Amino acid sequence: MAAPSGPKDPLVLFMPSGKRGRFPVGTGLMEAARQLGVPVESVCGGRGTCGRCQIAVQEGRFAKFGITSSRDHISPRGEKEARYDRIRGLPEGRRLACSATIRGDLVIDVPQDTVVDAQVIRKAASDRTIRREPAVRLCYVEVDQPDMQQPLGDLDRLKAALARDWGIRDPAVPLRLMPQVQKMLRKDNWGVTVAIHQDEEAERPEILALWPGLHNQAYGIACDIGSTTIALHLVSLLSGRVVASAGAANPQIRFGEDLMSRVSYVMMNPDGCEAMTRAVREAVNGLIGRACAQGGVDAGDILDTVFVANPIMHHLFLGIDPTELGQAPFALAVSGAVHTTAAELGLRANAGARAYLLPCIAGHVGADAAGATLAEGPHRQGRMMLLVDIGTNAEIVLGNSGRIVAASSPTGPAFEGAEISCGQRAAPGAIERVRIDRETLEPRLRIIGSELWSDEPGFGADAARLGVTGICGSAIIEAVAEMYLSGIVSADGAIDGTLASRSPRIVANGRTFAYLLHEGQPRIAVTQNDLRAVQLAKAALYAGIRLLMEKQGVTQVDTIRLAGAFGAFIDPKYAMVLGLIPDCALSEVRAVGNAAGTGAMMALLNRGHRREIERTVRRIEKIETALEPHFQQLFVDAMALPNRVDPFPKLAEEVALPRRQEATDNAPHGLARQGRMARRRRR
Amino acid sequence: MAAPSGPKDPLVLFMPSGKRGRFPVGTGLMEAARQLGVPVESVCGGRGTCGRCQIAVQEGRFAKFGITSSRDHISPRGEKEARYDRIRGLPEGRRLACSATIRGDLVIDVPQDTVVDAQVIRKAASDRTIRREPAVRLCYVEVDQPDMQQPLGDLDRLKAALARDWGIRDPAVPLRLMPQVQKMLRKDNWGVTVAIHQDEEAERPEILALWPGLHNQAYGIACDIGSTTIALHLVSLLSGRVVASAGAANPQIRFGEDLMSRVSYVMMNPDGCEAMTRAVREAVNGLIGRACAQGGVDAGDILDTVFVANPIMHHLFLGIDPTELGQAPFALAVSGAVHTTAAELGLRANAGARAYLLPCIAGHVGADAAGATLAEGPHRQGRMMLLVDIGTNAEIVLGNSGRIVAASSPTGPAFEGAEISCGQRAAPGAIERVRIDRETLEPRLRIIGSELWSDEPGFGADAARLGVTGICGSAIIEAVAEMYLSGIVSADGAIDGTLASRSPRIVANGRTFAYLLHEGQPRIAVTQNDLRAVQLAKAALYAGIRLLMEKQGVTQVDTIRLAGAFGAFIDPKYAMVLGLIPDCALSEVRAVGNAAGTGAMMALLNRGHRREIERTVRRIEKIETALEPHFQQLFVDAMALPNRVDPFPKLAEEVALPRRQEATDNAPHGLARQGRMARRRRR
Repeated sequence: MAAPSGPKDPLVLFMPSGKRGRFPVGTGLMEAARQLGVPVESVCGGRGTCGRCQIAVQEGRFAKFGITSSRDHISPRGEKEARYDRIRGLPEGRRLACSATIRGDLVIDVPQDTVVDAQVIRKAASDRTIRREPAVRLCYVEVDQPDMQQPLGDLDRLKAALARDWGIRDPAVPLRLMPQVQKMLRKDNWGVTVAIHQDEEAERPEILALWPGLHNQAYGIACDIGSTTIALHLVSLLSGRVVASAGAANPQIRFGEDLMSRVSYVMMNPDGCEAMTRAVREAVNGLIGRACAQGGVDAGDILDTVFVANPIMHHLFLGIDPTELGQAPFALAVSGAVHTTAAELGLRANAGARAYLLPCIAGHVGADAAGATLAEGPHRQGRMMLLVDIGTNAEIVLGNSGRIVAASSPTGPAFEGAEISCGQRAAPGAIERVRIDRETLEPRLRIIGSELWSDEPGFGADAARLGVTGICGSAIIEAVAEMYLSGIVSADGAIDGTLASRSPRIVANGRTFAYLLHEGQPRIAVTQNDLRAVQLAKAALYAGIRLLMEKQGVTQVDTIRLAGAFGAFIDPKYAMVLGLIPDCALSEVRAVGNAAGTGAMMALLNRGHRREIERTVRRIEKIETALEPHFQQLFVDAMALPNRVDPFPKLAEEVALPRRQEATDNAPHGLARQGRMARRRRR
Repeated sequence: MAAPSGPKDPLVLFMPSGKRGRFPVGTGLMEAARQLGVPVESVCGGRGTCGRCQIAVQEGRFAKFGITSSRDHISPRGEKEARYDRIRGLPEGRRLACSATIRGDLVIDVPQDTVVDAQVIRKAASDRTIRREPAVRLCYVEVDQPDMQQPLGDLDRLKAALARDWGIRDPAVPLRLMPQVQKMLRKDNWGVTVAIHQDEEAERPEILALWPGLHNQAYGIACDIGSTTIALHLVSLLSGRVVASAGAANPQIRFGEDLMSRVSYVMMNPDGCEAMTRAVREAVNGLIGRACAQGGVDAGDILDTVFVANPIMHHLFLGIDPTELGQAPFALAVSGAVHTTAAELGLRANAGARAYLLPCIAGHVGADAAGATLAEGPHRQGRMMLLVDIGTNAEIVLGNSGRIVAASSPTGPAFEGAEISCGQRAAPGAIERVRIDRETLEPRLRIIGSELWSDEPGFGADAARLGVTGICGSAIIEAVAEMYLSGIVSADGAIDGTLASRSPRIVANGRTFAYLLHEGQPRIAVTQNDLRAVQLAKAALYAGIRLLMEKQGVTQVDTIRLAGAFGAFIDPKYAMVLGLIPDCALSEVRAVGNAAGTGAMMALLNRGHRREIERTVRRIEKIETALEPHFQQLFVDAMALPNRVDPFPKLAEEVALPRRQEATDNAPHGLARQGRMARRRRR
């Protein structure tokens, strides 16, 4: 223990955290950092062998604090540091905090690159920082040798060393490790690195793995299992850095394109559940293999894994028959967070690796929505945040630190390009951007795989190379919105056939009309039926959002997050023009990519985030749209473009909207009937 | 909650515990029992379906308490009881404590046969009672049906029911059970029986198994894995009764007769450890199968298992290479109690069944000695208790509630009939009892399989049928002791050849003499070499005991327990005459049979006993005879019959001992040398 410090003691300031305090001369820098709560990591327990506690002295006068920091104010390099430098190399200016002691005022830089800092910036798209406090950590100990006078077993002396050096009391030890302990201890002169798992504070710690001597590698997996795509990050648990990422199509697609057809497959085939469970686990293992190869990581060093998934993927991954999720009351087998092991899931990782699945919010609002909630944090801020993850079902979360409500809405596959005559998945050749000239009604396009607009030189060559093959989900939104903004489509969703005289793009299509986007092979057009499909989908989404806004008692939201692949490609402006999302300052509408995956990574790197999302999910109010009589009216109201009831003043400031029709009681009954039919669950 | 009781309230007395208290009229009997700490068990949580809370009213005047108990003082049979009687039968006079309420003074009998009482008398040899508080219990719950407004998962609602009805908070659930939960709950109208494991008080409870509806069967295994024999009891965890027992030879004998030869086998054969682990686990499974068949029990209802074993058997059973135990410093891989699962040990039991191994005391004093200590309880009483388990090694525990010391001593196999010219295992035809006429020096014998002494009519026919094949370990003790008492052998262990003139039983045998026990085919004699072997073995044992007595600073012990098969057959008097054990009133020398197995059963039925023996073992002082310079002298001193130094006053009161030789400094040097050689470990 350090002596009590006085006002004359040296002042030590740690950067970048800015934490500071006075310590008596001779205090170790590691001890000072610990007392101030500056996270300086150590695997070796201060033996000067792991090198994880490196720091540097910033020299100079720091007027604000009235101190001068100098390398002379720290003890000279000691024996431990000399040895570390000899064996592993200690850069000039770098010191080991476990070795250096305070001699005077100091400004200490805790480098972000070498030292395992609490605030680690991920290399992924998001600039989020995650405080690092994983559920699994490495502890190096040197174990007392056997003593016939005190005949404690080898494992029992190992436990004693863990208690003495790391304060870890009586960890559980799996039988699997017991036969290894004796050889392990004798291999490197009674030095051994222990992987300790402790997820919950009150939980008994558990030894997951052992290595002879100092072992300095620990990795985790954060994985989002989507119906269509599985995405996975391989992350260092010691530095917090993403060392590799990998993604692949969900192989369950061969059992059924969408979720409901996969549930049907299980109902029809006695071993359907097992086959799909095997398929998704194999796919995850394939991705782990790829990520390990890419990052040069031994899969045996993967010690923790975290998963998010929608409820049906969640159940199938766990080997649970999802049939109950296909019918009312949509009962989840398990809604709370799942703690299990990678081995029980058949995953490629250390034999002791753990697995954690975030909680599901409801039968249609899964652990993926929980992950997105954790990442975007409506519960951490005061403004009314709308978080939408658009897939075959839209998962909608609305709230702030006071109260959160959530629902899912059956948008159907239109937003993914299905049920659209020329719709297709996002792939090279698919139209991804559409503009329509307000005067000539001529379109301009961009296709995936080309950087050029269709009226720029060179586009023809790209189009010839890639083909122009269809419209992807996000482009159908733009196309319909542009058709509306240019007057081709009325607010009630009808293509104005009278315009055929003005533009050859408006063509008859049976008894209705279509808008010709691209004349080629294939001919790509937006038909009246396509418009109806988009209207149904956007009405379902908007009605769900409106329902939650009513529950919250608000008529507008402060900020909007669009999660998922669709959200990443959609232009917020067009989403708002079409009335997918409510009115909001466009600068407050943000695509957040795979927020669910980001949430998984947060839960991987900080066990506190697990408790945070578990607590949050428990207090989220779940709204089941099927039980809300009012939902039907909201749905009918939302069918018009942008809708029949809500003004969009903020959008109107930025976009020239067509003059709104008067709201009438002439509800489009045919559409309403279609809507009711569409409201069977289409997950 | 019951209203506060007053002095005018009815007095309720529970038998046989005698616990009593006053309760307001209308208080439920179950509630009264709980308040008084009278253990009345319930699986169904008071629904009147499990029938485990049966009690009876004792009628009559109980003068001592000034009350009159009558069946009129209890509420009449209610609807729950009528239903139970209809479905399962409720004997006349029996009531369900969960249903009946107090109307006046009562004396309540908690029957031992039906109700799961805390004090259950085992049917086994010992009359010990074990308070029942197992680590695994059954809890029946009725789970709320799914609610779309509160979309908790099925498992989460099951947990909520456990918290509500049984106070069990957030149990861990293995992945294995998750796919079963939904079907299980729907099978019997949302009623389900849950097996909960909670060994340590502070530990997180765990769900081990689930059954639809009410399940009323829970069993455990208590097993002693000896080098020679494996013995196992199948016990009801609900009643505490032993429903079946089974024993078999340890099949590892084919790898080596004694422990050291099995360690050698492991050292010589790369897969030797694995082969022996497989053999012992298969043998345990065979016994489980036999016990289940015998008791009509489904192995799937076995939910907990407890094992004791010597250190090498302990390690081999766990799959740990025992090589380190074969050489100094005799390091155990694990000395503390082992908590694992039956599945990890490959045992035939419920897939969720647990396994617990008692702690080992030292490298040569195993979990079997810990089991015997738990059973005999030197730590629970004030007198100085000597507990000896004699096998190839003797495990010795000496102490009382203040302090306990323990050691092992290398007695070698003489006590098991090996190294004796005519020695054999205890089997039909083996001589088991010997008396020698002090005048004629003629022997009388009994053999295993016959109830007759050799001078009784009919013995000849038995001997002809069974044969007289050799001397078993306990009889060699008697034979030598009788030879000593009749003067054939001197205190220094020499057969007196001059007696050959007086009796034809004293015969020349090379340069020394032998005593002829039986003239037949084979001829059975005790030779001078046999005497030397017995002397070495008993000297090792006695020296170990003396060493511990010195550590305790006592010159005599108050009470002696002889554990193990050898202890069960040996006559304490002869053991004392020979000086195997120190002087003690013969009435205080007790054979306790398989005390290690009894300890296992205690740990199975009451988790408190696990903590008790873990605490006790931690404070037992381990004495390593090899590190005690004084041991050699004690050994030499103990070679004489009964020994060279200690008086046996209590024994002398009951047995006519030959006049003691003067203690001289003429130590029998040849024997001392033999002794040193014998002191290599012979486990």
